[in-house]
Amino acid sequence: MRTETGPAPASCPLATRFGRVRALSVALVADLSDADTTIQSMDDASPAKWHLAHTTWFFETFVLRDHVAGYRLHDERWPFLFNSYYEAEGARHARPSRGMLSRPSLAEILDYRAHVDAALNDALPELGEEAHDLVLLGCNHEEQHQELLLTDILHHFSVNPLEPALWQGTPKVPVAMPQPIGWLDHPGGIVAIGQDVESTGAEKPRFESTSSTDFAFDCEGPRHQALLAPHAIADRTVTNGEWAAFIADGGYRDSRHWLADGWTWVQAEGVEAPLYWRQEGGAWTRFGLDGRRPIDPAAPVTHVSLFEADAYASWAGARLPTEFEWEAAARGHDPKGGNQLDVAGPVEPRPSPGGPAFFGDVWEWTGSAYRPYPGFRTAPGAVGEYNGKFMSGQFVLRGGSCATPRGHVRASYRNFFYPHQRWQFTGVRLAKDI
Amino acid sequence: MRTETGPAPASCPLATRFGRVRALSVALVADLSDADTTIQSMDDASPAKWHLAHTTWFFETFVLRDHVAGYRLHDERWPFLFNSYYEAEGARHARPSRGMLSRPSLAEILDYRAHVDAALNDALPELGEEAHDLVLLGCNHEEQHQELLLTDILHHFSVNPLEPALWQGTPKVPVAMPQPIGWLDHPGGIVAIGQDVESTGAEKPRFESTSSTDFAFDCEGPRHQALLAPHAIADRTVTNGEWAAFIADGGYRDSRHWLADGWTWVQAEGVEAPLYWRQEGGAWTRFGLDGRRPIDPAAPVTHVSLFEADAYASWAGARLPTEFEWEAAARGHDPKGGNQLDVAGPVEPRPSPGGPAFFGDVWEWTGSAYRPYPGFRTAPGAVGEYNGKFMSGQFVLRGGSCATPRGHVRASYRNFFYPHQRWQFTGVRLAKDI
Amino acid sequence: MRTETGPAPASCPLATRFGRVRALSVALVADLSDADTTIQSMDDASPAKWHLAHTTWFFETFVLRDHVAGYRLHDERWPFLFNSYYEAEGARHARPSRGMLSRPSLAEILDYRAHVDAALNDALPELGEEAHDLVLLGCNHEEQHQELLLTDILHHFSVNPLEPALWQGTPKVPVAMPQPIGWLDHPGGIVAIGQDVESTGAEKPRFESTSSTDFAFDCEGPRHQALLAPHAIADRTVTNGEWAAFIADGGYRDSRHWLADGWTWVQAEGVEAPLYWRQEGGAWTRFGLDGRRPIDPAAPVTHVSLFEADAYASWAGARLPTEFEWEAAARGHDPKGGNQLDVAGPVEPRPSPGGPAFFGDVWEWTGSAYRPYPGFRTAPGAVGEYNGKFMSGQFVLRGGSCATPRGHVRASYRNFFYPHQRWQFTGVRLAKDI
Amino acid sequence: MRTETGPAPASCPLATRFGRVRALSVALVADLSDADTTIQSMDDASPAKWHLAHTTWFFETFVLRDHVAGYRLHDERWPFLFNSYYEAEGARHARPSRGMLSRPSLAEILDYRAHVDAALNDALPELGEEAHDLVLLGCNHEEQHQELLLTDILHHFSVNPLEPALWQGTPKVPVAMPQPIGWLDHPGGIVAIGQDVESTGAEKPRFESTSSTDFAFDCEGPRHQALLAPHAIADRTVTNGEWAAFIADGGYRDSRHWLADGWTWVQAEGVEAPLYWRQEGGAWTRFGLDGRRPIDPAAPVTHVSLFEADAYASWAGARLPTEFEWEAAARGHDPKGGNQLDVAGPVEPRPSPGGPAFFGDVWEWTGSAYRPYPGFRTAPGAVGEYNGKFMSGQFVLRGGSCATPRGHVRASYRNFFYPHQRWQFTGVRLAKDI
Repeated sequence: MRTETGPAPASCPLATRFGRVRALSVALVADLSDADTTIQSMDDASPAKWHLAHTTWFFETFVLRDHVAGYRLHDERWPFLFNSYYEAEGARHARPSRGMLSRPSLAEILDYRAHVDAALNDALPELGEEAHDLVLLGCNHEEQHQELLLTDILHHFSVNPLEPALWQGTPKVPVAMPQPIGWLDHPGGIVAIGQDVESTGAEKPRFESTSSTDFAFDCEGPRHQALLAPHAIADRTVTNGEWAAFIADGGYRDSRHWLADGWTWVQAEGVEAPLYWRQEGGAWTRFGLDGRRPIDPAAPVTHVSLFEADAYASWAGARLPTEFEWEAAARGHDPKGGNQLDVAGPVEPRPSPGGPAFFGDVWEWTGSAYRPYPGFRTAPGAVGEYNGKFMSGQFVLRGGSCATPRGHVRASYRNFFYPHQRWQFTGVRLAKDI
Repeated sequence: MRTETGPAPASCPLATRFGRVRALSVALVADLSDADTTIQSMDDASPAKWHLAHTTWFFETFVLRDHVAGYRLHDERWPFLFNSYYEAEGARHARPSRGMLSRPSLAEILDYRAHVDAALNDALPELGEEAHDLVLLGCNHEEQHQELLLTDILHHFSVNPLEPALWQGTPKVPVAMPQPIGWLDHPGGIVAIGQDVESTGAEKPRFESTSSTDFAFDCEGPRHQALLAPHAIADRTVTNGEWAAFIADGGYRDSRHWLADGWTWVQAEGVEAPLYWRQEGGAWTRFGLDGRRPIDPAAPVTHVSLFEADAYASWAGARLPTEFEWEAAARGHDPKGGNQLDVAGPVEPRPSPGGPAFFGDVWEWTGSAYRPYPGFRTAPGAVGEYNGKFMSGQFVLRGGSCATPRGHVRASYRNFFYPHQRWQFTGVRLAKDI
Repeated sequence: MRTETGPAPASCPLATRFGRVRALSVALVADLSDADTTIQSMDDASPAKWHLAHTTWFFETFVLRDHVAGYRLHDERWPFLFNSYYEAEGARHARPSRGMLSRPSLAEILDYRAHVDAALNDALPELGEEAHDLVLLGCNHEEQHQELLLTDILHHFSVNPLEPALWQGTPKVPVAMPQPIGWLDHPGGIVAIGQDVESTGAEKPRFESTSSTDFAFDCEGPRHQALLAPHAIADRTVTNGEWAAFIADGGYRDSRHWLADGWTWVQAEGVEAPLYWRQEGGAWTRFGLDGRRPIDPAAPVTHVSLFEADAYASWAGARLPTEFEWEAAARGHDPKGGNQLDVAGPVEPRPSPGGPAFFGDVWEWTGSAYRPYPGFRTAPGAVGEYNGKFMSGQFVLRGGSCATPRGHVRASYRNFFYPHQRWQFTGVRLAKDI
Repeated sequence: MRTETGPAPASCPLATRFGRVRALSVALVADLSDADTTIQSMDDASPAKWHLAHTTWFFETFVLRDHVAGYRLHDERWPFLFNSYYEAEGARHARPSRGMLSRPSLAEILDYRAHVDAALNDALPELGEEAHDLVLLGCNHEEQHQELLLTDILHHFSVNPLEPALWQGTPKVPVAMPQPIGWLDHPGGIVAIGQDVESTGAEKPRFESTSSTDFAFDCEGPRHQALLAPHAIADRTVTNGEWAAFIADGGYRDSRHWLADGWTWVQAEGVEAPLYWRQEGGAWTRFGLDGRRPIDPAAPVTHVSLFEADAYASWAGARLPTEFEWEAAARGHDPKGGNQLDVAGPVEPRPSPGGPAFFGDVWEWTGSAYRPYPGFRTAPGAVGEYNGKFMSGQFVLRGGSCATPRGHVRASYRNFFYPHQRWQFTGVRLAKDI
C-alpha cells in the first residue's frame, strides 16, 4: 500500500531518523489525489496537503532559516500559509480557511518537501547541538501530524456521501471475544511521573538528541513525584461489543451518567453512538479508512469523546483512570509494541491478543485535565508555544493509537483534546477505587 | 486560451447548439486543476466541478431518464450529489457541503459529460417536441452555470492569499475617459414588456424550440403592458473612476444615502469599496481572473451590491431605473452586441466605445423587486421550480455581463440576486424622474 | 377595561387629536405592571415602556427641541435610550438591548409623558405650520406604536409558560360560518393610486395639517397612475376554518406551494401552523390578549407570514393581490369602519358581518414588494428616515387590523414587514387572474 | 441599607439558621423594583426574582414535597419555572428565557417565600435527620444564590447605559498602599485536603446537620492526602494598582502571556481590562453596586477571568497556586474573617489591613481544574446533581468574596467557573516554585 521514498538515509542516526519520518509522510498520501489533499472537512481538521507543507515549514523556519547561513526561503509567501499557531512567527492564514488553497498544488508541495529535505540533509553535518535538537523536535512534530493527516482524511472521506475507501481492508479473521476485564490493583503511594527534558539555559537545548527513545516533549516534565490512592485499573480497553450494550441499555439517553457539558453536547448534536457508527438493518457499521463495514465486537471501541467515555464509565460503575494511575500501570510495558502505525498495513483498532496492553490501538481518555506539572516552564521563543499554551479546557489521553507512528509514544507521553472531540482514534480504559 | 472541444456538431440546429454549449463549459475549465474545481469558497458559490456535473445531471434527468427508453443512469448515487434545488427530485447533498467532494474527480466528471453527451446526441433525432424543448432549456440552463462557474472561480481565487491568476491579462491600451453621462428621455406611457412562452396545456411545452433567439425563461412572461412615468435613463453605466469619487466623498460612511438594510450590511461587513478592490499605496486595485491590477477608471464599475448601487444613485442625485424602464430603453439594441463571453478573450468589463449600450460588460441592478408578471404561472413538475419560487427578497438585474455567453441574453431577460450579493459582474446605470 | 386620561382636550382640533392619542397610549398600559412593560421578548419587539418613551421622545425632539425656544430636555441621557433608528439623531441604545432597562421605571416614563404633554400643550398655540405638521406626524407615529405595543405585549405574554391573559375575553357568541368567498371582478385598466403629500419646498411642510383624514405618510405618494390587468379579488379574507383545512391537507409539508425562502424558513423554524396556534387534544387553540382559547373557525386567520399567505394562495389555486389591485377595490369603503382599535373592547379578529370589507381585523399581505412610487423623494433631515430607507426586502400590507387605532388607516395606507414576520395581526385575501 | 426580616427565629439552631438565611435574601432585594428583579442581562445570569423563587423551590421540592405528608405545592406550574438544572426533576423553563417572566411578580414570589417559610417552620420539629440535612443543604444552597443575586444585579445594572447605583457608596478613606507581596514558603510534602461528608449508606444522609461549620458540599470530600512540591504562595492578592501596571505594560496585547483559548477570547471579545473597568480622562474607573467610581489602587483587583489571572501571573514571573497549595496555606486562618457579606455595609473588595488573609474580598482563581477527589461519588437522586456533573472545563476558586455570606465558606470550599467567566468577584493570588 505504501512504499518508503524520500531522502536517502545518511550515516548519522538523526539523518536516518529524518529520512524515515519524511518518507513516511509522503507514503501516506500515495493514494490521494491533489483534490483529496486540498479539502478541509471541519475547522478541527486540516487538508493533507497542509500537513505536508506545515511540517516542512517547521524545519525550514526553525532549522534552515535560523541556523543555516544564506538559506533562502523556498517561497516567501508560504510561511503565511503554513504557520499553524505560532503567534511569535507573525500573521498567518486563518485556520478555518486552510481548505481554500487549491494552489500551491500537491505537486508543488512535494517539490517544497524535496527542496527542504535536500537543504537539511546538506546542512545536517554542520549543524550544532541546538539545531540538532530542533531537527529531532521536527521529526516528533511531523509524526504527530502523520496521525492527524490520517484522522483528518478519515473525517473528510466520511462527509462524502459516497464514503470512499482510501485503502482496501484486509479480510476479517474471526477472533475469539476478549476475556472479561481483569483488574490490576495498585496499593497507592508515591510514584515517579514524567520524563525530564533539559532546559537549563540558552546554550543548552530543551530537547535531547542522543536517541529517539530519550526524547520527550516539554509537557512531559519535569519528572516528579505523585501520590496515588489505592485503585485498580482495567487490563484492557472497552470493546465495540461492550459499547453496543451501553447503547442498547439507553446509555445515550440517561442524563444521570453524563457530565452537564456532555449532556448538553449529546442533546445539541443528537449523538447516539460513536462517530462513524451507523445502524443499518438493525446492526451497527462503522466507517474507516477501508470504507464502511460492520463493527467488530471484539475490537476496542474508538472515536468516542471524553464525555462519552465518562458516561460509559459511570454506567459501568467505574471511572476513568487519572493520567498518573495510567502511567504507573504502563511503565514496564513496551511502548513500541501493540498496534501502531507502520509503513504498511491496515489502520484500525484490532482485538488484543491477550495480556495487559497499554500502547497502540486507541488513545485512552484519562480523567485528568491537561495542566502543567510542578516546575513546568515554557521554552523561550516560538517553539515555547508548542504545548504550554494549550493547558486549559482539555483532557489528557495516553498510550498512542493504531495511527501513531511506531516509536513515537512512550509511558510519559501526554496527548490532549477537548472533551467533545472524537475524530482521533480515542478509546476508554476503566479504573475504580479500591 | 480556450479551445472548443466536445460532441461533434450535428446537422440539426439544436444538436449544433447543444454541442457548442457543452464544449464551452469544458473549455472554461481547461486551465483548472482537479483541486481548483473542487473548492467551494462560500455558500453562495459552487465548485467548478459541481457546475460541470449539475448541468449534465439536468440533461440526464429531465431528458434521458424521462424521455429515452432504457437509459441507465451513469451512476445511481450521483443525482443525490448533483441536484441543485429541485425538491420534487428528492433528497440532495446539502448546498454548503458541495466543496467536500474530492470524489468523483474532475476526470470522472468529464467522463460523465462525455457519456451523457453521446447518449443525448444518439437520442436527439428520435426525441419529441417536449424533449426538444427540455434540451433547449438545458442549453440555456448550462449557459447560466457557465457564468456562475467563472464568477465562482474568481471568488475562490480571491480568497487564496496568493491571488492566483486564471488567465494572463491582455495589455492595457490607454482609452479616452468616457463622456459624461447622457440622458435618454422617455415621455412615459404604456409599453409592452416581456416575452411570451407557450404554456397553454399539458401537451404543449412551455419553452419554445424553434430557435435560440425565440427562447425565453418562464419568468420573462407573459408579455404584457406596463405604464411608465416620464423619466430619463443614462446612456452608459457608472465607471470605476466615478465610483472612486463616491468613495473619496465618504459615500460608504454617510448613512443618509443607504437603505436601512444596506447600512446594517455596510457596518456589519465593514464594506468600504466594491468587492475585490483594495487600496495599495493610495491607489485602488481590483482582483480579476487575470490577477490583481490597478482599476481602470474608464471601465464600468462592477462587483457592487444593490445596496451600494442604490446608495451611489442617491449620492449622485438620481435613482436606479425600474426593470420596465430599462427594457423599454434596451429594445432595439443588439442583445448579442457588447462585451460578452466568447470562446476566447479576457473576461472583465471594458470601457465602452461610445454610444448607448445596454448589453454585456455588467449586469445592471434595477430598482425592481423580482416578482411575477401578471398571469405568470409555474410549469408542472420539477422544472416548474426553475424561477417562480425565488420571487421574494431579490432584485432584478438586466443586460448580461462580460461573463454571459454571447447569445444568451435578450431585452426581456431577468436576472435576480439578493441585494447584498456582489460576486457576479454587477454594475449600475442611473435613471431619474423628469 | 381602558379609560381615557391625559391632557385635557384643547379647543383646536390638533390639540384634541394630540390629547386623544396620548391618552390612548396610557390607557393601553393600564393593566400592565412595571415589569410587564420592561421585557423585550424578541429583537423585533420592544418593551411597552419603550414605546411610551419613544413616542414621547419624538415630540420632544422634533417639536419641542427644534421649535420651542428655551425648551430643556426632560433628561439629557434619555434621547440615547429612546431614539429608535434615526441615524441623523446620533448614537442610540442597541435595539436588542431595549429590554435591559429596568430604569427608568414605568412611573418615571409616565412623568416624562406628562412633562412633554404639558410643554407641548403650552406651546401649541404659538407653533408655526411646520411644527404643527410635525405634531400631526407625531400623532400618526404614536398610533403606529400603539399597535406595536399591543402586538409586542401579546408576543411577550406568549413566551411566558404561564400564558397570562392581559384582558378578560368576551363570551363567544355562536356565529354563522361566512359564505364561500365571492369574487369581485375588475376589468383592468389605468387607476389612480396613492395620496399626495405636499413637499415642494423648505417653507412648505410635507405632512398636511388641516385634518386627520388628509394626512398621509410620505410613502403613500406621489399620487400616480397604475395599470391593472384584468383580475378578481376576494370579497373577504381567509378564515381560521379554511386555514385548518390547509394544514390538514399537508400544506405546511408540501414544498410545491412555497417560495424557496419560505420553504427554508418553514423547515428551519419547524413551522406547522400560524403563530400562537397549538394543537390540544386534536383541536387547535390560539393565544391572544385574552389568553389561550379554541380558534374561531369563522374569524379571519391571523399571525401568518407572507410565506404562509403565499403558500396558502398557491394551495387554493389563487394568488395574493397586488397592492394596486387592493387599493382599487378598497376605494369607496369606509376606512373607519370594521373592527379596529377603540378605547374599549376586545382586540382580536372577528367574523365579518357580511358584505365586502377591506378595513380592520387583519392586515392583508399583498404580493407587492415595498418600493417607492414614481417621483418619491425623502424629506430632508431626520424625519426623512421615516419610510424610504426601509424599501428593500419587505412586502406591503394593506387595510389595518383590530389593533390599528380607528381613524389611522386609509385606502392608500402602506404597511410593510419582512416576509417571515408574523407577530402583527396579519392575514390573507386572495386574488386571481381573469 | 438592609434590614433583617422574615420568619421569627425558632429555638433550634437549624430553625435559627433557616430564618436568618431566608431573611437575608429578602433584605438583599429591598431596594429593587419588580422590574429590577425581572431582567436577565446575559445567559450566565438570572433575574433576582428567579433566585428568590428557585431557592424556595429547593426547600419546597426536596423537603416539603418529599418529607411532609399532605403538603400541597404553592402553584403546580411553578416547578417548571424555577427548577434550575436538575434533570431528574423533569422538564424546566429554558435557562436563557428566565428574563421573560414578568409574571409571577416580585410580590407573588415574596408570598411564595412566606408560604414555604411558614410550612417549613411548622414542619421542622417533626422532620427526621435526612430532611434536616436537606434543610441545611438548602440554607447553604441559598447562600450561594445570595452571592449570585448580587453579582447578577451588578451585571444587569452595568448594561444599563444610565449605570444606576443600587446603594450609596461609603466615603472613601485614604488608605496606605499595601506592602509589596510577601511570600509564604512551603517545603512540600504530604498534606491533608478536603472535608469528609458522610455518605456511607441509604439511611445515612450525606450532609451533616450538627452545626453549620461542619457542613461541607460533596465535592469537598473525601478528605484525602495530597503531595505538594516545594513552593511559595503570596501573602495577599493582586491589587488594582498592580493590575493597572500590567495593562500599561501591554499585558493584554502580548500573546506570550496567554493561554491559547485565552488569547482567542481576548481577541474575539476585545478585552482590554477587567470587567466593569473603563478609561475616562486617562484614569481607570470601575462600576460597582454603588455606581461608577475611580478604581482604588490599594484594593484587590476583581472581575478578572482565569485567562486574565493566568496571563497576569505569567507577566509577573509567577504562576497561580494549585487548589491544594491554597488550602494548605489557608488552614488555620479564620474562615469567618475578612470582608464578607453581612446584613449591612458596602459590597466590594477593600484594601487588606495587613497580614496574610485568605478569606473574603475576592474569590481566588487556582490553577486546578475542577475534578473529583479520589473516592468521590455522587449522591443518589436529584441532589446528586449538585456538583459532580459540572466537573469538566471549569477551574477551582477558593476563599470566598465580599459577596459571600459570612459563615458560608471554609478552607476546603471549592467554587468553580469556566475560565472566561468574570462577573463574580474573582481575583488573583500568585504562587511560584522554589
